Amino acid sequence: MQQRAKATRTAVIEGAASIFEEVGYGNASLSDVTKRANVTKGALYFHFKSKEDLALAVIAEQHNIVRIAGEKIAAAGLPALETMVTMCKTFGQQLLDEPVVRAGIRLTFEASAFNGDVKGPYQDWMATMEFLTQQAQREGDIREDLNASDFAHYLVASFTGSQMVSNVMTGRQDVLKRIDDMWDFMMPAIVPRQHQDQRS
Amino acid sequence: MQQRAKATRTAVIEGAASIFEEVGYGNASLSDVTKRANVTKGALYFHFKSKEDLALAVIAEQHNIVRIAGEKIAAAGLPALETMVTMCKTFGQQLLDEPVVRAGIRLTFEASAFNGDVKGPYQDWMATMEFLTQQAQREGDIREDLNASDFAHYLVASFTGSQMVSNVMTGRQDVLKRIDDMWDFMMPAIVPRQHQDQRS
Repeated sequence: MQQRAKATRTAVIEGAASIFEEVGYGNASLSDVTKRANVTKGALYFHFKSKEDLALAVIAEQHNIVRIAGEKIAAAGLPALETMVTMCKTFGQQLLDEPVVRAGIRLTFEASAFNGDVKGPYQDWMATMEFLTQQAQREGDIREDLNASDFAHYLVASFTGSQMVSNVMTGRQDVLKRIDDMWDFMMPAIVPRQHQDQRS
Repeated sequence: MQQRAKATRTAVIEGAASIFEEVGYGNASLSDVTKRANVTKGALYFHFKSKEDLALAVIAEQHNIVRIAGEKIAAAGLPALETMVTMCKTFGQQLLDEPVVRAGIRLTFEASAFNGDVKGPYQDWMATMEFLTQQAQREGDIREDLNASDFAHYLVASFTGSQMVSNVMTGRQDVLKRIDDMWDFMMPAIVPRQHQDQRS
Protein backbone atom coordinates (compact mmCIF):
# COMPACT_ATOMS: atom_id res chain seq x y z
CA MET A 1 0.00 0.00 0.00
CA GLN A 2 2.74 2.45 0.97
CA GLN A 3 4.58 1.68 -2.25
CA ARG A 4 1.41 2.36 -4.23
CA ALA A 5 0.97 5.72 -2.49
CA LYS A 6 4.56 6.56 -3.35
CA ALA A 7 3.97 5.64 -7.01
CA THR A 8 0.88 7.86 -7.09
CA ARG A 9 2.80 10.74 -5.54
CA THR A 10 5.53 10.37 -8.18
CA ALA A 11 2.93 10.24 -10.98
CA VAL A 12 1.29 13.43 -9.67
CA ILE A 13 4.65 15.26 -9.45
CA GLU A 14 5.59 14.20 -12.98
CA GLY A 15 2.17 15.17 -14.36
CA ALA A 16 2.35 18.51 -12.54
CA ALA A 17 5.88 19.14 -13.84
CA SER A 18 4.71 18.51 -17.37
CA ILE A 19 1.77 20.94 -17.01
CA PHE A 20 3.77 23.63 -15.14
CA GLU A 21 6.51 23.47 -17.76
CA GLU A 22 3.99 23.95 -20.56
CA VAL A 23 1.80 26.72 -19.20
CA GLY A 24 3.49 28.12 -16.08
CA TYR A 25 2.15 28.39 -12.54
CA GLY A 26 -0.62 30.92 -13.20
CA ASN A 27 -2.28 29.03 -16.05
CA ALA A 28 -1.92 25.51 -14.60
CA SER A 29 -5.07 23.90 -13.18
CA LEU A 30 -5.20 20.93 -10.82
CA SER A 31 -7.73 19.17 -13.05
CA ASP A 32 -5.24 19.33 -15.95
CA VAL A 33 -2.70 17.73 -13.59
CA THR A 34 -5.03 14.88 -12.60
CA LYS A 35 -5.71 14.18 -16.31
CA ARG A 36 -2.03 14.27 -17.24
CA ALA A 37 -1.05 12.08 -14.26
CA ASN A 38 -4.03 9.79 -14.78
CA VAL A 39 -5.07 9.96 -11.11
CA THR A 40 -8.27 10.98 -9.34
CA LYS A 41 -8.72 14.35 -7.67
CA GLY A 42 -8.94 12.47 -4.35
CA ALA A 43 -5.55 10.88 -4.94
CA LEU A 44 -4.02 14.26 -5.74
CA TYR A 45 -5.50 15.90 -2.63
CA PHE A 46 -4.34 12.98 -0.48
CA HIS A 47 -0.75 14.10 -1.24
CA PHE A 48 -1.00 17.85 -1.96
CA LYS A 49 -3.38 20.33 -0.40
CA SER A 50 -3.04 23.10 -3.03
CA LYS A 51 -1.46 24.17 -6.32
CA GLU A 52 1.19 26.03 -4.30
CA ASP A 53 1.97 22.88 -2.34
CA LEU A 54 2.35 20.96 -5.60
CA ALA A 55 4.60 23.63 -7.14
CA LEU A 56 6.88 23.52 -4.09
CA ALA A 57 7.02 19.71 -4.37
CA VAL A 58 8.09 19.98 -8.03
CA ILE A 59 10.83 22.46 -7.04
CA ALA A 60 11.96 20.09 -4.24
CA GLU A 61 12.02 17.14 -6.64
CA GLN A 62 13.98 19.17 -9.23
CA HIS A 63 16.52 20.14 -6.59
CA ASN A 64 16.72 16.52 -5.48
CA ILE A 65 17.41 15.24 -9.02
CA VAL A 66 20.18 17.79 -9.62
CA ARG A 67 21.65 17.23 -6.13
CA ILE A 68 21.82 13.46 -6.57
CA ALA A 69 23.65 13.94 -9.90
CA GLY A 70 25.99 16.36 -8.11
CA GLU A 71 26.69 13.85 -5.34
CA LYS A 72 27.58 11.20 -7.93
CA ILE A 73 30.05 13.61 -9.53
CA ALA A 74 31.54 14.46 -6.12
CA ALA A 75 31.90 10.74 -5.33
CA ALA A 76 34.14 10.26 -8.39
CA GLY A 77 36.93 11.96 -6.42
CA LEU A 78 38.06 14.37 -9.16
CA PRO A 79 39.94 17.51 -8.15
CA ALA A 80 37.45 19.96 -6.61
CA LEU A 81 37.66 22.56 -9.40
CA GLU A 82 36.94 19.87 -12.01
CA THR A 83 34.03 18.67 -9.85
CA MET A 84 32.57 22.20 -9.85
CA VAL A 85 32.84 22.55 -13.64
CA THR A 86 31.34 19.09 -14.21
CA MET A 87 28.44 19.82 -11.83
CA CYS A 88 27.56 22.96 -13.80
CA LYS A 89 27.70 21.16 -17.16
CA THR A 90 25.60 18.29 -15.82
CA PHE A 91 22.98 20.71 -14.48
CA GLY A 92 22.91 22.32 -17.94
CA GLN A 93 22.42 18.94 -19.60
CA GLN A 94 19.61 18.10 -17.15
CA LEU A 95 17.85 21.32 -18.18
CA LEU A 96 17.81 19.92 -21.70
CA ASP A 97 16.90 16.32 -20.82
CA GLU A 98 14.71 16.30 -17.70
CA PRO A 99 11.18 17.76 -17.73
CA VAL A 100 11.03 17.87 -13.90
CA VAL A 101 14.25 19.93 -13.83
CA ARG A 102 12.91 22.36 -16.44
CA ALA A 103 9.61 22.69 -14.58
CA GLY A 104 11.34 23.24 -11.21
CA ILE A 105 13.49 26.03 -12.66
CA ARG A 106 10.52 27.70 -14.35
CA LEU A 107 8.60 27.58 -11.05
CA THR A 108 11.61 28.95 -9.15
CA PHE A 109 11.65 32.01 -11.44
CA GLU A 110 7.87 32.36 -11.15
CA ALA A 111 7.91 31.81 -7.37
CA SER A 112 6.95 35.42 -6.68
CA ALA A 113 3.60 34.52 -8.28
CA PHE A 114 2.78 32.18 -5.39
CA ASN A 115 4.92 33.73 -2.66
CA GLY A 116 7.05 30.60 -2.65
CA ASP A 117 10.24 30.77 -0.60
CA VAL A 118 12.89 29.42 -2.97
CA LYS A 119 15.99 30.40 -0.99
CA GLY A 120 16.72 26.77 -0.02
CA PRO A 121 18.15 25.42 -3.30
CA TYR A 122 20.27 28.56 -3.80
CA GLN A 123 21.63 28.23 -0.24
CA ASP A 124 22.42 24.56 -0.80
CA TRP A 125 24.35 25.26 -4.01
CA MET A 126 26.21 28.17 -2.46
CA ALA A 127 27.27 25.98 0.49
CA THR A 128 28.36 23.14 -1.84
CA MET A 129 30.34 25.50 -4.10
CA GLU A 130 31.94 27.24 -1.11
CA PHE A 131 33.04 23.87 0.29
CA LEU A 132 34.46 22.82 -3.10
CA THR A 133 36.17 26.21 -3.58
CA GLN A 134 37.95 25.78 -0.24
CA GLN A 135 38.99 22.25 -1.25
CA ALA A 136 40.28 23.56 -4.61
CA GLN A 137 42.25 26.19 -2.68
CA ARG A 138 43.90 23.42 -0.64
CA GLU A 139 44.59 21.54 -3.87
CA GLY A 140 46.31 24.61 -5.34
CA ASP A 141 43.83 25.07 -8.20
CA ILE A 142 42.15 28.23 -6.87
CA ARG A 143 44.20 31.12 -5.46
CA GLU A 144 44.30 31.23 -1.68
CA ASP A 145 43.39 34.90 -1.28
CA LEU A 146 40.01 34.48 -3.03
CA ASN A 147 36.96 34.84 -0.74
CA ALA A 148 35.36 31.39 -1.10
CA SER A 149 31.94 32.52 0.11
CA ASP A 150 31.72 35.53 -2.24
CA PHE A 151 32.96 33.45 -5.16
CA ALA A 152 30.47 30.64 -4.50
CA HIS A 153 27.70 33.25 -4.35
CA TYR A 154 28.86 34.77 -7.61
CA LEU A 155 29.14 31.37 -9.32
CA VAL A 156 25.58 30.39 -8.38
CA ALA A 157 24.21 33.80 -9.44
CA SER A 158 26.14 33.77 -12.69
CA PHE A 159 25.05 30.22 -13.52
CA THR A 160 21.43 31.15 -12.77
CA GLY A 161 21.61 34.17 -15.08
CA SER A 162 23.40 32.23 -17.83
CA GLN A 163 20.81 29.48 -18.07
CA MET A 164 17.91 31.89 -17.60
CA VAL A 165 19.02 34.27 -20.36
CA SER A 166 19.78 31.27 -22.61
CA ASN A 167 16.17 30.21 -22.12
CA VAL A 168 14.78 33.67 -22.94
CA MET A 169 17.01 34.18 -25.99
CA THR A 170 17.21 30.70 -27.57
CA GLY A 171 14.86 28.37 -25.66
CA ARG A 172 18.07 26.91 -24.09
CA GLN A 173 19.59 25.89 -27.45
CA ASP A 174 22.89 27.54 -26.47
CA VAL A 175 22.81 26.72 -22.73
CA LEU A 176 25.86 24.40 -22.79
CA LYS A 177 27.94 26.94 -24.76
CA ARG A 178 26.94 29.71 -22.31
CA ILE A 179 27.97 27.56 -19.32
CA ASP A 180 31.32 26.87 -21.03
CA ASP A 181 31.76 30.61 -21.70
CA MET A 182 30.99 31.33 -18.04
CA TRP A 183 33.86 29.12 -16.91
CA ASP A 184 36.18 30.56 -19.60
CA PHE A 185 35.48 34.06 -18.27
CA MET A 186 35.84 32.91 -14.64
CA MET A 187 39.02 30.85 -14.74
CA PRO A 188 41.52 33.71 -15.10
CA ALA A 189 40.03 35.38 -12.01
CA ILE A 190 40.36 32.36 -9.76
CA VAL A 191 43.44 30.34 -10.76
CA PRO A 192 46.69 30.99 -8.89
CA ARG A 193 49.18 33.36 -10.51
CA GLN A 194 51.66 30.61 -11.52
CA HIS A 195 48.93 28.74 -13.45
CA GLN A 196 48.27 31.89 -15.46
CA ASP A 197 51.94 32.10 -16.35
CA GLN A 198 51.82 28.49 -17.54
CA ARG A 199 48.84 29.27 -19.73
CA SER A 200 50.29 32.35 -21.40
CA MET B 1 -5.65 67.51 -24.50
CA GLN B 2 -2.78 65.39 -25.82
CA GLN B 3 -0.72 66.40 -22.80
CA ARG B 4 -3.55 65.34 -20.51
CA ALA B 5 -3.76 61.94 -22.22
CA LYS B 6 -0.02 61.55 -21.76
CA ALA B 7 -0.31 62.42 -18.06
CA THR B 8 -3.08 59.83 -17.65
CA ARG B 9 -0.98 57.19 -19.43
CA THR B 10 1.96 57.94 -17.10
CA ALA B 11 -0.32 57.74 -14.04
CA VAL B 12 -1.68 54.37 -15.19
CA ILE B 13 1.83 52.99 -15.78
CA GLU B 14 3.02 54.18 -12.38
CA GLY B 15 -0.07 52.79 -10.65
CA ALA B 16 0.34 49.50 -12.49
CA ALA B 17 4.03 49.32 -11.60
CA SER B 18 3.19 49.83 -7.95
CA ILE B 19 0.57 47.03 -8.02
CA PHE B 20 2.69 44.60 -10.11
CA GLU B 21 5.65 45.15 -7.80
CA GLU B 22 3.53 44.37 -4.74
CA VAL B 23 1.56 41.33 -5.87
CA GLY B 24 3.08 40.15 -9.18
CA TYR B 25 1.39 39.68 -12.55
CA GLY B 26 -0.93 36.83 -11.61
CA ASN B 27 -2.48 38.50 -8.57
CA ALA B 28 -2.76 42.02 -10.03
CA SER B 29 -6.23 43.20 -11.09
CA LEU B 30 -6.99 46.12 -13.38
CA SER B 31 -9.47 47.56 -10.89
CA ASP B 32 -6.66 47.74 -8.29
CA VAL B 33 -4.63 49.63 -10.89
CA THR B 34 -7.40 52.17 -11.59
CA LYS B 35 -7.75 52.80 -7.83
CA ARG B 36 -4.00 53.18 -7.31
CA ALA B 37 -3.64 55.45 -10.36
CA ASN B 38 -6.83 57.35 -9.50
CA VAL B 39 -8.23 57.02 -13.03
CA THR B 40 -11.46 55.59 -14.45
CA LYS B 41 -11.63 52.17 -16.10
CA GLY B 42 -12.46 53.98 -19.35
CA ALA B 43 -9.24 56.00 -19.11
CA LEU B 44 -7.24 52.85 -18.52
CA TYR B 45 -8.83 51.01 -21.45
CA PHE B 46 -8.28 54.04 -23.69
CA HIS B 47 -4.54 53.40 -23.34
CA PHE B 48 -4.22 49.65 -22.63
CA LYS B 49 -6.41 46.86 -23.94
CA SER B 50 -5.45 44.19 -21.39
CA LYS B 51 -3.39 43.35 -18.31
CA GLU B 52 -0.76 41.83 -20.60
CA ASP B 53 -0.60 45.04 -22.62
CA LEU B 54 -0.12 47.02 -19.41
CA ALA B 55 2.61 44.67 -18.15
CA LEU B 56 4.51 45.04 -21.42
CA ALA B 57 4.18 48.85 -21.14
CA VAL B 58 5.67 48.74 -17.61
CA ILE B 59 8.59 46.64 -18.91
CA ALA B 60 9.09 49.10 -21.81
CA GLU B 61 9.03 52.06 -19.40
CA GLN B 62 11.50 50.32 -17.05
CA HIS B 63 13.85 49.67 -19.96
CA ASN B 64 13.46 53.28 -21.07
CA ILE B 65 14.36 54.65 -17.61
CA VAL B 66 17.49 52.50 -17.35
CA ARG B 67 18.48 53.21 -20.97
CA ILE B 68 18.20 57.00 -20.51
CA ALA B 69 20.44 56.76 -17.43
CA GLY B 70 22.85 54.65 -19.48
CA GLU B 71 22.92 57.23 -22.29
CA LYS B 72 23.75 59.98 -19.78
CA ILE B 73 26.66 57.92 -18.49
CA ALA B 74 27.86 57.24 -22.05
CA ALA B 75 27.66 60.98 -22.85
CA ALA B 76 30.14 61.75 -20.05
CA GLY B 77 32.88 60.42 -22.33
CA LEU B 78 34.59 58.20 -19.75
CA PRO B 79 36.75 55.32 -20.97
CA ALA B 80 34.45 52.56 -22.25
CA LEU B 81 35.30 50.04 -19.51
CA GLU B 82 34.53 52.63 -16.83
CA THR B 83 31.27 53.42 -18.65
CA MET B 84 30.29 49.72 -18.51
CA VAL B 85 31.03 49.44 -14.78
CA THR B 86 29.15 52.69 -14.03
CA MET B 87 26.13 51.56 -16.08
CA CYS B 88 25.89 48.35 -14.04
CA LYS B 89 26.16 50.17 -10.70
CA THR B 90 23.57 52.74 -11.78
CA PHE B 91 21.15 49.99 -12.86
CA GLY B 92 21.68 48.41 -9.42
CA GLN B 93 20.93 51.71 -7.68
CA GLN B 94 17.78 52.16 -9.79
CA LEU B 95 16.59 48.74 -8.61
CA LEU B 96 16.76 50.17 -5.09
CA ASP B 97 15.28 53.62 -5.85
CA GLU B 98 12.78 53.33 -8.71
CA PRO B 99 9.51 51.41 -8.30
CA VAL B 100 8.94 51.25 -12.08
CA VAL B 101 12.38 49.63 -12.52
CA ARG B 102 11.67 47.05 -9.80
CA ALA B 103 8.25 46.28 -11.29
CA GLY B 104 9.65 45.93 -14.83
CA ILE B 105 12.30 43.47 -13.65
CA ARG B 106 9.77 41.44 -11.65
CA LEU B 107 7.50 41.28 -14.72
CA THR B 108 10.43 40.29 -16.95
CA PHE B 109 11.12 37.29 -14.70
CA GLU B 110 7.39 36.46 -14.57
CA ALA B 111 6.95 36.98 -18.33
CA SER B 112 6.40 33.28 -18.95
CA ALA B 113 3.16 33.75 -16.98
CA PHE B 114 1.71 35.95 -19.74
CA ASN B 115 3.72 34.66 -22.71
CA GLY B 116 5.45 38.04 -22.91
CA ASP B 117 8.38 38.25 -25.31
CA VAL B 118 11.07 39.95 -23.22
CA LYS B 119 14.03 39.38 -25.56
CA GLY B 120 14.17 43.06 -26.59
CA PRO B 121 15.76 44.63 -23.47
CA TYR B 122 18.32 41.78 -23.22
CA GLN B 123 19.24 42.25 -26.91
CA ASP B 124 19.59 46.02 -26.40
CA TRP B 125 21.94 45.59 -23.44
CA MET B 126 23.99 42.93 -25.19
CA ALA B 127 24.42 45.22 -28.23
CA THR B 128 25.38 48.19 -26.01
CA MET B 129 27.87 46.12 -24.00
CA GLU B 130 29.37 44.58 -27.15
CA PHE B 131 29.86 48.06 -28.65
CA LEU B 132 31.50 49.31 -25.43
CA THR B 133 33.66 46.17 -25.16
CA GLN B 134 35.01 46.81 -28.68
CA GLN B 135 35.68 50.43 -27.76
CA ALA B 136 37.48 49.33 -24.57
CA GLN B 137 39.56 46.97 -26.72
CA ARG B 138 40.61 49.91 -28.92
CA GLU B 139 41.40 51.90 -25.76
CA GLY B 140 43.63 49.08 -24.52
CA ASP B 141 41.57 48.34 -21.39
CA ILE B 142 40.17 44.97 -22.56
CA ARG B 143 42.41 42.37 -24.19
CA GLU B 144 42.13 42.24 -27.96
CA ASP B 145 41.65 38.48 -28.30
CA LEU B 146 38.46 38.48 -26.19
CA ASN B 147 35.25 37.70 -28.14
CA ALA B 148 33.26 40.91 -27.56
CA SER B 149 29.91 39.34 -28.41
CA ASP B 150 30.34 36.35 -26.08
CA PHE B 151 31.62 38.58 -23.28
CA ALA B 152 28.72 41.04 -23.66
CA HIS B 153 26.31 38.10 -23.53
CA TYR B 154 28.02 36.77 -20.41
CA LEU B 155 28.05 40.18 -18.72
CA VAL B 156 24.30 40.68 -19.26
CA ALA B 157 23.51 37.13 -18.08
CA SER B 158 25.77 37.42 -15.06
CA PHE B 159 24.33 40.82 -14.09
CA THR B 160 20.79 39.42 -14.44
CA GLY B 161 21.62 36.47 -12.19
CA SER B 162 23.43 38.64 -9.64
CA GLN B 163 20.54 41.04 -9.10
CA MET B 164 17.96 38.26 -9.26
CA VAL B 165 19.67 36.08 -6.65
CA SER B 166 20.28 39.16 -4.48
CA ASN B 167 16.52 39.75 -4.57
CA VAL B 168 15.69 36.14 -3.62
CA MET B 169 18.29 35.96 -0.84
CA THR B 170 18.21 39.44 0.74
CA GLY B 171 15.39 41.43 -0.90
CA ARG B 172 18.19 43.27 -2.79
CA GLN B 173 19.91 44.51 0.38
CA ASP B 174 23.28 43.30 -0.97
CA VAL B 175 22.69 44.07 -4.67
CA LEU B 176 25.39 46.77 -4.93
CA LYS B 177 27.98 44.53 -3.23
CA ARG B 178 27.10 41.64 -5.57
CA ILE B 179 27.49 43.88 -8.65
CA ASP B 180 30.90 45.02 -7.30
CA ASP B 181 31.88 41.37 -6.71
CA MET B 182 30.82 40.52 -10.27
CA TRP B 183 33.25 43.09 -11.68
CA ASP B 184 36.00 41.98 -9.29
CA PHE B 185 35.62 38.41 -10.55
CA MET B 186 35.43 39.57 -14.20
CA MET B 187 38.31 42.04 -14.42
CA PRO B 188 41.18 39.52 -14.36
CA ALA B 189 39.58 37.65 -17.29
CA ILE B 190 39.27 40.69 -19.53
CA VAL B 191 42.14 43.09 -18.86
CA PRO B 192 45.23 42.83 -21.06
CA ARG B 193 48.16 40.82 -19.73
CA GLN B 194 50.38 43.84 -18.94
CA HIS B 195 47.65 45.35 -16.71
CA GLN B 196 47.60 42.14 -14.68
CA ASP B 197 51.35 42.40 -14.16
CA GLN B 198 50.89 45.95 -12.93
CA ARG B 199 48.30 44.76 -10.45
CA SER B 200 50.32 41.95 -8.99
